[in-house]
Amino acid sequence: MKKTIGIIGGMGPLATADLFRKIILHTEARSDQAHLRVLIDNNTNIPDRTAALLHGGADPAPEMIRSARWLEQGGADLLIMPCNTAHNFRAQVQAAVSVPVLDMIQLTCDALKAQGVVCAGLLATTGTIQTGIYQRVCGASGIRLLTPDGEGQTAVMEMIYSGVKAGLETYDTSAVQQAVAQMQTDGAQKIVLGCTELPLAAEQYGLRFPSIDPTLELALAAIRAAGATVRPQN
Amino acid sequence: MKKTIGIIGGMGPLATADLFRKIILHTEARSDQAHLRVLIDNNTNIPDRTAALLHGGADPAPEMIRSARWLEQGGADLLIMPCNTAHNFRAQVQAAVSVPVLDMIQLTCDALKAQGVVCAGLLATTGTIQTGIYQRVCGASGIRLLTPDGEGQTAVMEMIYSGVKAGLETYDTSAVQQAVAQMQTDGAQKIVLGCTELPLAAEQYGLRFPSIDPTLELALAAIRAAGATVRPQN
Repeated sequence: MKKTIGIIGGMGPLATADLFRKIILHTEARSDQAHLRVLIDNNTNIPDRTAALLHGGADPAPEMIRSARWLEQGGADLLIMPCNTAHNFRAQVQAAVSVPVLDMIQLTCDALKAQGVVCAGLLATTGTIQTGIYQRVCGASGIRLLTPDGEGQTAVMEMIYSGVKAGLETYDTSAVQQAVAQMQTDGAQKIVLGCTELPLAAEQYGLRFPSIDPTLELALAAIRAAGATVRPQN
Repeated sequence: MKKTIGIIGGMGPLATADLFRKIILHTEARSDQAHLRVLIDNNTNIPDRTAALLHGGADPAPEMIRSARWLEQGGADLLIMPCNTAHNFRAQVQAAVSVPVLDMIQLTCDALKAQGVVCAGLLATTGTIQTGIYQRVCGASGIRLLTPDGEGQTAVMEMIYSGVKAGLETYDTSAVQQAVAQMQTDGAQKIVLGCTELPLAAEQYGLRFPSIDPTLELALAAIRAAGATVRPQN
């Protein structure tokens, strides 16, 4: 009997749709009924995570917990959250439910380690970077983590908020590309797309560099945890 | 106060992700919090609708109703189903909940009429065609509806089940294209992509002809019904 996946979504909505789509596309299934049951709360009432962490904004945890409990009551056997910054509140969500809440940050570091990466670069929101969540988990795995300089970080935030979250179809990514090139020069073997809007930006705005996609790692782990098989990709 | 949308999904999973994505992309919103709350049950326990309608397969209505009630209890103010064939069971679902279940078939015929179409072609599952659901609704709107001949219909079913639902990345669409060309010769001004897998097939397999996408019409109607604004497209 396969398990049901619950997605605490809305952080952001497009990233939620991206995670859902990646679960479907990577599940070995030849009919509707062979796919996994997935419950989603695209809860756009959850306050901005970066604003809470850095600027004293409203606490997102209560609304995240409300979604988690509703999904658990609906039959979700495991929960996932397609938002890196939200993982700063993962322990609080986990404490509020009895089903596992998978850890996208840990899964990403595990994948980097399995690929033999010893130095990676991080593209993420300022909230994710300043809380040091990736630095801690990567550090424990012996992976050195680089981040963009101040100007580069501003460019990343601009692209996330004024580009992807605002729904822009095209965007000038040259400042972001420059920040990536600098991290590569400094030794980064792979770039962590450490905000769930970034795989979307990479696809839509044509960013091209060796990277790892935490949303994809989370999708693959959820498929396996639910008892389904990951479909081999071409 | 904007309303919450509930999606009775899993029929099929990719079509569910497509509808969710279309709602997000077409909503006028510049931040996560400005987007609509959407609850989704990608319920892959719902039996095949065509099998039930034509071959005495298991009745999908009870499981559809279970999803509908769970979504309503979770706060959905309106429900939508991204599956044309499933609309044969819409009245039963509507009778089981107190929130409106939007009618994708009616919305599509309304859009055709608004575009001045008097004759359209229908690509759909054999279940949708044989139950006459589109014929009835279009007929009531004064729109003549053409369908493919036997060979063409077999090709459409093949593409839906052995192509999209099976997750194939490429597919030889020549037999489907031929069926469309015949309907156009017979007077069809627009082709109804009357199975929610067909907009995906059109995009992925490169089908090109004047068409109407019921999934998109449903997404736009849901956005408006939820009190949000449809974003102008480029």
